[in-house]
Amino acid sequence: MSTKNAPTHPQPLDLKSVRITDSYWSNHVDLIKHTVIPYQWEALNDRVPDAEPSHAIRNFRIAAGLEEGSFAGFVFQDTDLYKWLEAVGYSLAQSPDSDLEKVADEAIDLIGAAQQEDGYLNTYFTIDKLDQRWTNLMDCHEMYTAGHLIEAAVAYFYGTGKTKLLDIARKIADHIDDRFGPEEGKIRGYDGHQEIELALVKLYHATSEVRYLNLAGFLIDERGQKPNFFEEEFERRGRISHWAPGVVQKGPVNLAYHQAHKPVREHEVATGHAVRAVYMYTAMADLALLKGDNALLEACRRLWDNIVQKQMYVTGSIGSTHHGEAFTFDYDLPNDTNYSETCASIGLIFFAQRLLQNEVKGEYADVMERALYNTVTAGIAGDGKHYFYVNPMEVWPAASEGNPGKRHIKPVRQKWYGCACCPPNVSRLLSSLGQYIYSASDEALFVHLYIGSQISHEVAGRSVQLDMESRLPWEGQVRLKVQEADGAGDFTIALRLPGWSAESAVRVNGQPAQYELRDGYAYIRRDWQAGDVVELELDMQPRRIYAHPNLRASSGKVALQRGPLVYCLEETDNGAPLASLSLPADAELQVVTDEWRGGVAVIEADGLRTGTPAEAPNDLYSTVRPQLEQQRLRAVPYTLWGNREPGEMTVWIRES
Amino acid sequence: MSTKNAPTHPQPLDLKSVRITDSYWSNHVDLIKHTVIPYQWEALNDRVPDAEPSHAIRNFRIAAGLEEGSFAGFVFQDTDLYKWLEAVGYSLAQSPDSDLEKVADEAIDLIGAAQQEDGYLNTYFTIDKLDQRWTNLMDCHEMYTAGHLIEAAVAYFYGTGKTKLLDIARKIADHIDDRFGPEEGKIRGYDGHQEIELALVKLYHATSEVRYLNLAGFLIDERGQKPNFFEEEFERRGRISHWAPGVVQKGPVNLAYHQAHKPVREHEVATGHAVRAVYMYTAMADLALLKGDNALLEACRRLWDNIVQKQMYVTGSIGSTHHGEAFTFDYDLPNDTNYSETCASIGLIFFAQRLLQNEVKGEYADVMERALYNTVTAGIAGDGKHYFYVNPMEVWPAASEGNPGKRHIKPVRQKWYGCACCPPNVSRLLSSLGQYIYSASDEALFVHLYIGSQISHEVAGRSVQLDMESRLPWEGQVRLKVQEADGAGDFTIALRLPGWSAESAVRVNGQPAQYELRDGYAYIRRDWQAGDVVELELDMQPRRIYAHPNLRASSGKVALQRGPLVYCLEETDNGAPLASLSLPADAELQVVTDEWRGGVAVIEADGLRTGTPAEAPNDLYSTVRPQLEQQRLRAVPYTLWGNREPGEMTVWIRES
Repeated sequence: MSTKNAPTHPQPLDLKSVRITDSYWSNHVDLIKHTVIPYQWEALNDRVPDAEPSHAIRNFRIAAGLEEGSFAGFVFQDTDLYKWLEAVGYSLAQSPDSDLEKVADEAIDLIGAAQQEDGYLNTYFTIDKLDQRWTNLMDCHEMYTAGHLIEAAVAYFYGTGKTKLLDIARKIADHIDDRFGPEEGKIRGYDGHQEIELALVKLYHATSEVRYLNLAGFLIDERGQKPNFFEEEFERRGRISHWAPGVVQKGPVNLAYHQAHKPVREHEVATGHAVRAVYMYTAMADLALLKGDNALLEACRRLWDNIVQKQMYVTGSIGSTHHGEAFTFDYDLPNDTNYSETCASIGLIFFAQRLLQNEVKGEYADVMERALYNTVTAGIAGDGKHYFYVNPMEVWPAASEGNPGKRHIKPVRQKWYGCACCPPNVSRLLSSLGQYIYSASDEALFVHLYIGSQISHEVAGRSVQLDMESRLPWEGQVRLKVQEADGAGDFTIALRLPGWSAESAVRVNGQPAQYELRDGYAYIRRDWQAGDVVELELDMQPRRIYAHPNLRASSGKVALQRGPLVYCLEETDNGAPLASLSLPADAELQVVTDEWRGGVAVIEADGLRTGTPAEAPNDLYSTVRPQLEQQRLRAVPYTLWGNREPGEMTVWIRES
Repeated sequence: MSTKNAPTHPQPLDLKSVRITDSYWSNHVDLIKHTVIPYQWEALNDRVPDAEPSHAIRNFRIAAGLEEGSFAGFVFQDTDLYKWLEAVGYSLAQSPDSDLEKVADEAIDLIGAAQQEDGYLNTYFTIDKLDQRWTNLMDCHEMYTAGHLIEAAVAYFYGTGKTKLLDIARKIADHIDDRFGPEEGKIRGYDGHQEIELALVKLYHATSEVRYLNLAGFLIDERGQKPNFFEEEFERRGRISHWAPGVVQKGPVNLAYHQAHKPVREHEVATGHAVRAVYMYTAMADLALLKGDNALLEACRRLWDNIVQKQMYVTGSIGSTHHGEAFTFDYDLPNDTNYSETCASIGLIFFAQRLLQNEVKGEYADVMERALYNTVTAGIAGDGKHYFYVNPMEVWPAASEGNPGKRHIKPVRQKWYGCACCPPNVSRLLSSLGQYIYSASDEALFVHLYIGSQISHEVAGRSVQLDMESRLPWEGQVRLKVQEADGAGDFTIALRLPGWSAESAVRVNGQPAQYELRDGYAYIRRDWQAGDVVELELDMQPRRIYAHPNLRASSGKVALQRGPLVYCLEETDNGAPLASLSLPADAELQVVTDEWRGGVAVIEADGLRTGTPAEAPNDLYSTVRPQLEQQRLRAVPYTLWGNREPGEMTVWIRES
């Protein structure tokens, strides 16, 4: 990815220059390559038994005239394929695979065959509703879908050097640029689901075509202006929603849901659909950087602070309600009805990564790590074939079944969803993991995540090769070795000292390092030479986490965290009901290695269980204080929950 | 009310023979008579400023041809007027009022003018949909509406001796009896919203016409039989719901919501819409008694046990979810999203009262009292003009506003609802309160509720007058004095010893009483004479109430109760957030009389508040255990909550 537009700001490394060799993460990365990508290809072709069909490939075949039939699935169904192709692009960048590339090339041919002469491409509309295109931007995800195509195209171009998909993407981007913009005769509109904005920035990086950057800027800045585009569009089509055809809507447009209630620079708090919000904030941070737009960066910082200080779960997930998959309001973080969509945490990681390009601050990487190690990886089962869309803080399977307000809380990962945004989103994130670990400016290399890997990159004019070994998340030792650094001259290696590590020791070649501590990073500047070794010793004491008292849902409770991992109690280990368990304030937290999955650090402690009064076991309410019984508690990493028998789960534990 | 069909079972007293003279309850009863009934008449006539219009009177005027226009409101809008008339009937029974009676008579004339020749009456259908009547029993509340008419008619007949409304009611009952039943040529159907079943039993009592009793029995026993009437009816009308005209429904009929998933005698647990359920159970208990049907009584006992042991809130409310205003499943009693409709608690009181007629057991009266003193009275504001539909266990006004899953939780009572079932339901219950305090068999007088009153009734052939003075709910002294008891011979006065009173002293004429304790009642049998005095001293120690450990939502928490009143914390007294407060296990509960409303016993205790860590006041999550600060807690009776500044409220308090 080009860094020429912002030479002083650190940029992620080219994916091809990062090889992941981590014992923990290689499993995930291999799972994506060897299992998830092939499995998702089967899903896209509707060949997974007992799973909801995707219809995605079939829709393209129909749109391309290769098959008879009608469109099936959601209006954004094409994105299933685009996100898969994006993941394939990342995967091929790191490990070429001619068979996979051949399959992908055929899919790209199919996409090309479905594209209109004028560049338009969206199988929902092209199959039999072409006259309706661009008439309902609020609901119909046309730019969103194009955005995923663009992201796929850029990834596939970087991964393979091939331009066919990039050309397709440019054609639709040009089509959109012809129709939308501030110029006379163009529509001053924007999409209901933000996504294309960040994609256009990527397309600009890949093509150096500044029109794409300007279009992204227009879409961001036009949003929420008056008169409101969505309101006008809604009236123009007779107050009809795509989601309820034929019904004239009474209520007003929910503009805050679409983050279009006022110009985005004026937003004070994160509102509405969480994925749309963080995708938009990501693009805002991109634009702030590329255009040196401090006012926009200020808005990004304000929204970031609002999320992480008032609207984020301890697992790095966002979206307090399933109604609109949305943010609600400050400190409203219910544990048993949260949405916490996997995709939203992925978007939060995008946002954090872009903010890290604007300014290197530990808090951005801390949240990125929190979301990645906990929610994103919880979203996918160990077998790579089952997924969570919703990542609850608390599960009672009977309530998921029997209480309609909790139906969205699934106690078991599902094979595939009709609306399958999350599975391929996990796939594209994990296959591009190399872009989140490091970044580099002209004279410094930043290490944000401690994921074992080998990199080569030019810093301060010197060609540097570096190996990182990490024992995270189970142990706190990290070791970086400079394998090569040709020439001479100082440059900086800046290591993030994680917020969760109360004391972090940094050594260079065995000696305590001299470093400047700035915003959570240890900056070590020296004339690095091949053979230099940096060692980091992080504090892996298990910790009790307390919520701010305004976060009512977790009052009187603790969460457990060790290193980057948040823990939870599962019924399998502790018995039901989990709500009867409490952790005494003075109980020692003990770390025990379990053989499960080749070694998992679990946390154990002497806890208490509230018993049933023997004299009145059937009384729903009693004046008898229940007896407390001793019980050994066992907490497992949240990311692994739901991989054994279905049962209760809770992140927050009562402290007694 | 006739007792001739079940001579050995105690029956409620005639309302005319009970005069309420209680210092606590007279306020409520007077409020109903002097404020609520006149106010609701204004509401029925759409004359309450800024309140949702009722449309009820206007619909009748249109149906009667007195006004042009079209129907407005819900399909069951007529019941607003019927429930009001029922309350008027009860009120007139106790305190004649010729002005009120004149207004009511005119309303009855209007109802009569709207009735069809064939007896049918329902303004929704008669105005312009007469051809559609009886085609959608599942959704359209036609029998439900007729049921409320019947109940009003019986009450008005008992209250005034006038038969006009009773004749109207008989006419529609006959119309229904002609069309529905097991006989050849009749429809084997029943209503989506049970109500008529219990009403028909009342009509049978008032008229001695056994057809009405049999029709009630048919409606109960036909329900849930196969083939299922609702399913067949649904298919017949093309899978269209009244609530979504024009939309062909995909899903199956939710039979459990309608308590029609299997024959009612086979129901194991309470399911579905809570009001419908308890109205039906009430009729089942009526029929069990009148027909000596032990199998039906067994079903009633089973459903009662399920409710009170597994699905009831500590305030005597039911309905764990607003989705369908319904029961969910055992031990699922969330505090922040419950429905707990006022009407459902009223229905639960009906059910308890009918069970008390089948068998005198303290637990029935305990629950009746719990629902009455807490939920039902909480449903109405001190001014008699504002109402709660939903009675939450926990309120955070910001969440009611900002979290869509909590929109049904109103922090402030509303003036009137478009769907105004609760206000007139409270009104009819409180104006007939005399029917719940006592019951009598041939040889015993039962005192179920300690509400000051004067009664006259014939027991064991003796004409008895009794005065009861009660200092409840503030003090535990109750005094019953026999004012008259002509003749001689033993009879029993049976006093309920409330479940909440750990020790209850009973004295007769100043001496410890000899009594037989049976199912929570003290049976005192003697040759009662004028001047005899029974004194009851109940234990008014404030108590901590603990929930069964399976009731996950209240784990680690206590509720406070004193006498029949459940208490709550309000933000006004304790500051926000209430979730930060806890009550130490050893804190003394102190009762203090507050001057509010002429004297309210509040409970105070030395509690703790979780503070915000000074070093990181903005951190959403912190490893620093928050400091606890001393705070005096102040709990007020739940029934009075929401009568001051809007704010947070909680019934359950963390115990520390």
